[in-house]
Amino acid sequence: MSFETKGTIADFGGKLLKLSHQAKSTNCEMNLNLFLPGSASASKPVPVLFYLAGLTCTGDNGAEKGFFQAKAAEKGIAVVFPDTSPRGLKIEGEDESYDFGSGAGFYVDATKEPWSKGYKMYSYITDELPAALFGHFKELDGNRVSITGHSMGGHGALTLFLKNPGKYKSVSAFAPICNPSNCPWGEKAFSGYFGEDKKDKWAEHDATELLAKYPDNTDILIDVGTGDNFYKQKQLLPENFEKAAKAAGKGVKVNYRDGYDHSYFFISTFASDHVEHAAKYLLKKR
Amino acid sequence: MSFETKGTIADFGGKLLKLSHQAKSTNCEMNLNLFLPGSASASKPVPVLFYLAGLTCTGDNGAEKGFFQAKAAEKGIAVVFPDTSPRGLKIEGEDESYDFGSGAGFYVDATKEPWSKGYKMYSYITDELPAALFGHFKELDGNRVSITGHSMGGHGALTLFLKNPGKYKSVSAFAPICNPSNCPWGEKAFSGYFGEDKKDKWAEHDATELLAKYPDNTDILIDVGTGDNFYKQKQLLPENFEKAAKAAGKGVKVNYRDGYDHSYFFISTFASDHVEHAAKYLLKKR
Repeated sequence: MSFETKGTIADFGGKLLKLSHQAKSTNCEMNLNLFLPGSASASKPVPVLFYLAGLTCTGDNGAEKGFFQAKAAEKGIAVVFPDTSPRGLKIEGEDESYDFGSGAGFYVDATKEPWSKGYKMYSYITDELPAALFGHFKELDGNRVSITGHSMGGHGALTLFLKNPGKYKSVSAFAPICNPSNCPWGEKAFSGYFGEDKKDKWAEHDATELLAKYPDNTDILIDVGTGDNFYKQKQLLPENFEKAAKAAGKGVKVNYRDGYDHSYFFISTFASDHVEHAAKYLLKKR
Repeated sequence: MSFETKGTIADFGGKLLKLSHQAKSTNCEMNLNLFLPGSASASKPVPVLFYLAGLTCTGDNGAEKGFFQAKAAEKGIAVVFPDTSPRGLKIEGEDESYDFGSGAGFYVDATKEPWSKGYKMYSYITDELPAALFGHFKELDGNRVSITGHSMGGHGALTLFLKNPGKYKSVSAFAPICNPSNCPWGEKAFSGYFGEDKKDKWAEHDATELLAKYPDNTDILIDVGTGDNFYKQKQLLPENFEKAAKAAGKGVKVNYRDGYDHSYFFISTFASDHVEHAAKYLLKKR
């Protein structure tokens, strides 16, 4: 599917494109932002970092407040900022809660009616969107892709990476929901999108459950603020992810950042580190 | 007057304080943000950069989207993000336009009724706010202060600097309204706040008129995007300011940035340059 460019904004020597396209998987028009560094060209395509946003967000939050562009421009990396759910499907109750339905797609393919009719963010992010982007924008190198995200988007980044060995060169996350099967946000979302099949469907989208099955070693970077109320409320559970990493002998580095909260002030402070982490893999000499 | 701290947010190794205080000059409660770098302490107070925001903005826009904190943290400079007008004075018509009244104080002391009862942003920014801040926060060095701003706030930064020789160590501006007496925004604001006394009151708050009277040479940094619609519509008139600089033999550097617009994407791209410009003067060995 082709993209409509609704805006082109000069940004850090490159440009931020405000895009929209009709998506099959989500059954609606999807908006996103794409940052192209100044160095991007069809003859010298640049690698790509996906940033998955958290609950209530759209593709705008990360682009406006995340400050990934500064380091991405310097390194010559494109950044994709997708939306967090389908919009306007007119499913009953879709806009009733901040943590389920619109703005809260949880990067899964819902199997339960009525959500299964368009809440397919897993397919959208792993398959339809990259195929569309890499077909359309010759400035992007579809063979060098990394992923990161915040909160629900951190869960998305970790699970998409772990479920698709080789697809992403690296993964990192800001305050991710690490063990959704065991926290209120995840329980609500997975019950709603999957029903009660915990052993099968839930575990398939739980980073803490998936980690041991990953065929290679990992180098996963996570930052979490110790002043983050959702961390304190056990919505994030990085400690469970660390335990799973230790048991499986996988490389996971969780930085507990003194006093930082869950906001974009936290993300912008550490955004450069996460772009650097991706750059290590995306810019590796081949 | 003392401040109420409504929030303390960890940010780039320092903290962003969400402050509010009762202000006499503006006759209402004023909100602002203060970024304190991690190095700030009462025994080693840091210099201060004021960032004045543009039409429709509050103290939040610059703090959330300006990206001043990255370089300010590195240099050890505090940043003050004040509001752009009094709020809630219940003056008739106060909230009717985006370019006059609330969100549009224009950094002047209104002399015309009913605006004179609280639209005193000139006194608030040059006098009451710094006195209150430097009295309260011993981490701030009130003898080393610079100023910058965007659009209406760029006009504010330039005029406050030029009207108060020695008060600010340096000035810079993003897409400033350089010659308000000759553009629609300025004409509307100055008519409303001052009446028709162009020769006297208007010229006193017009950077292009003030420049020649400044007693010293200047080193003024301005960035303007060539894709900025307000630049194209002659609301900004940096060309008039450059002409005045040339005639008066003053140092003014206007960078015309190819394709950049009037948004915070433009500001965040060049924010580090403006902090560097201020740092040259604020961190000068004494």
